[in-house]
Amino acid sequence: MSVISVGTMAFDAIETPFGKIDKIVGGSGIYVAYAAAHFITPIKQISIIGYDFPKEELDELNSRGVELDGVEVVADKKSFFWSGKYHEDMNSRDTLVTDLNVLADFKPVVPQSYQGAEFLMLGNLSPDIQLSIINQLTERPKLVVMDTMNFWMDIALDGLKEVLKKVDVLMVNDAEARQLSGEYSLVKAAKNIMEMGPKFLIIKKGEHGALLFHESHVFFAPALPLEDVFDPTGAGDTFAGGFIGHIAKTKDISFSNMKTAIIVGSAMASFCVEKFGPNRLKEITKADIDTRIAEFVQLVNFDIDLV
Amino acid sequence: MSVISVGTMAFDAIETPFGKIDKIVGGSGIYVAYAAAHFITPIKQISIIGYDFPKEELDELNSRGVELDGVEVVADKKSFFWSGKYHEDMNSRDTLVTDLNVLADFKPVVPQSYQGAEFLMLGNLSPDIQLSIINQLTERPKLVVMDTMNFWMDIALDGLKEVLKKVDVLMVNDAEARQLSGEYSLVKAAKNIMEMGPKFLIIKKGEHGALLFHESHVFFAPALPLEDVFDPTGAGDTFAGGFIGHIAKTKDISFSNMKTAIIVGSAMASFCVEKFGPNRLKEITKADIDTRIAEFVQLVNFDIDLV
Repeated sequence: MSVISVGTMAFDAIETPFGKIDKIVGGSGIYVAYAAAHFITPIKQISIIGYDFPKEELDELNSRGVELDGVEVVADKKSFFWSGKYHEDMNSRDTLVTDLNVLADFKPVVPQSYQGAEFLMLGNLSPDIQLSIINQLTERPKLVVMDTMNFWMDIALDGLKEVLKKVDVLMVNDAEARQLSGEYSLVKAAKNIMEMGPKFLIIKKGEHGALLFHESHVFFAPALPLEDVFDPTGAGDTFAGGFIGHIAKTKDISFSNMKTAIIVGSAMASFCVEKFGPNRLKEITKADIDTRIAEFVQLVNFDIDLV
Repeated sequence: MSVISVGTMAFDAIETPFGKIDKIVGGSGIYVAYAAAHFITPIKQISIIGYDFPKEELDELNSRGVELDGVEVVADKKSFFWSGKYHEDMNSRDTLVTDLNVLADFKPVVPQSYQGAEFLMLGNLSPDIQLSIINQLTERPKLVVMDTMNFWMDIALDGLKEVLKKVDVLMVNDAEARQLSGEYSLVKAAKNIMEMGPKFLIIKKGEHGALLFHESHVFFAPALPLEDVFDPTGAGDTFAGGFIGHIAKTKDISFSNMKTAIIVGSAMASFCVEKFGPNRLKEITKADIDTRIAEFVQLVNFDIDLV
């Protein structure tokens, strides 16, 4: 029972209305790994880093059951760097800097020791890279989950559509679902996108929760209304990590279990935003997670027998 | 067991991306009445209309258990008229025309036959009118629910705050909750607003559902993801009508029952948007409503024992 996770491992500089940090570890692969490892190990990480990526962070990941055989270290280049500034409403942000550095040459090779993994989480990377990972696997995983973004719809739509044919679950936000489908109604958008390949579609709506579509079914998971959102960076990737972590732990890829996995992902994302970067994900315990999930149950629980 | 509902009875002209109608009956009181009367009668209506308001509509309301003793008819003036045009996303609209007509002189008198009603729904009207209604009641209702909007926050904030001290439940949208409280976080906004008087706060988020706050509790009800939204006019008032209708039918003003009432209100609102004006609310049956509520149960139902 194991999960392959492909994503970036990077440095971020983040400014929010509540504070500023010049350099903190980030990247989709980091958030997925720290979130998923609370539920299942090993996480078989595939990524690329430069000479400047901290040894202590690799040790920390490793101690949590994140295997790093698939993380390429480039001796003469820097790690991927992203810098962003959030607006007052915390729902939108400006990207200030994107230094690809090592990421420009990322041609991941799946280590032999990773073969046979049952679950694959494809983080937001170019469709070429995502497809290359799928094609390198000698045995198709039980479930392939893919994240992507509007950027790839703009510049690599054909490649993206090729990958979509080969994945089980697609995760996008509401604007991206509308862009990909050309439909404004999310119900129509979901039908359209599921015809492109994925049997399941998760539409993330940030503070407004997430929708899961499958055939004619739909499930809605709220986001926890939070008193303070400190730093939204990585919330979507943390959601993905909690989702794949729960699925892999339970080995159940039914629609019913995916609903639970979305609640777990939402709970993990609600922790992520409480501190800068992935810091909060490193602190929380199983008990913290259980308490948070119970809050989600309370949040949506109602007694309909009265009607 | 009865409900007093105070609100406008008007004509609307509506343009959406899907169609256009030059004159249709509308107004908050109309939507509340048609929605609530599916659950409880009589609805004791308080409103004002002009000579031009159709007799057939009054007969229709009456046949559904809506008492009209409190509806003043002005013989030489026209009914309130509103005209609006929705944008492509259906979430925002431009008001094109607001002809107050009879509404300019609205000084409602509560008929003697309405005294003793157990529930009061104060539709979105000036705080002066809302306060006058409360003060005219010889016996305080079991539950007073109030709707308002940003317009009154802009021009009559002091009066609005006076009314807030006397109501149990306030309904506003997310932007209005932020404006009224000066807090961006809806959790902080809710705490702030509940200190102004209401023990319960409902924050309506349109297609993103609704939140119910009470003391330290919060409940989230989703909106049903719809394939087509034809005309959103009146959805908020229909939500209020379903809410007060369920509360009055069950005579239970607990937090737990309010959660159910919000689901009922959301179900009614999901019908409202399917056709122009209140038309859909007149067609639906008890069976239609039950089926729709069951869809809401499916939408949020998940099995957390698996975690």
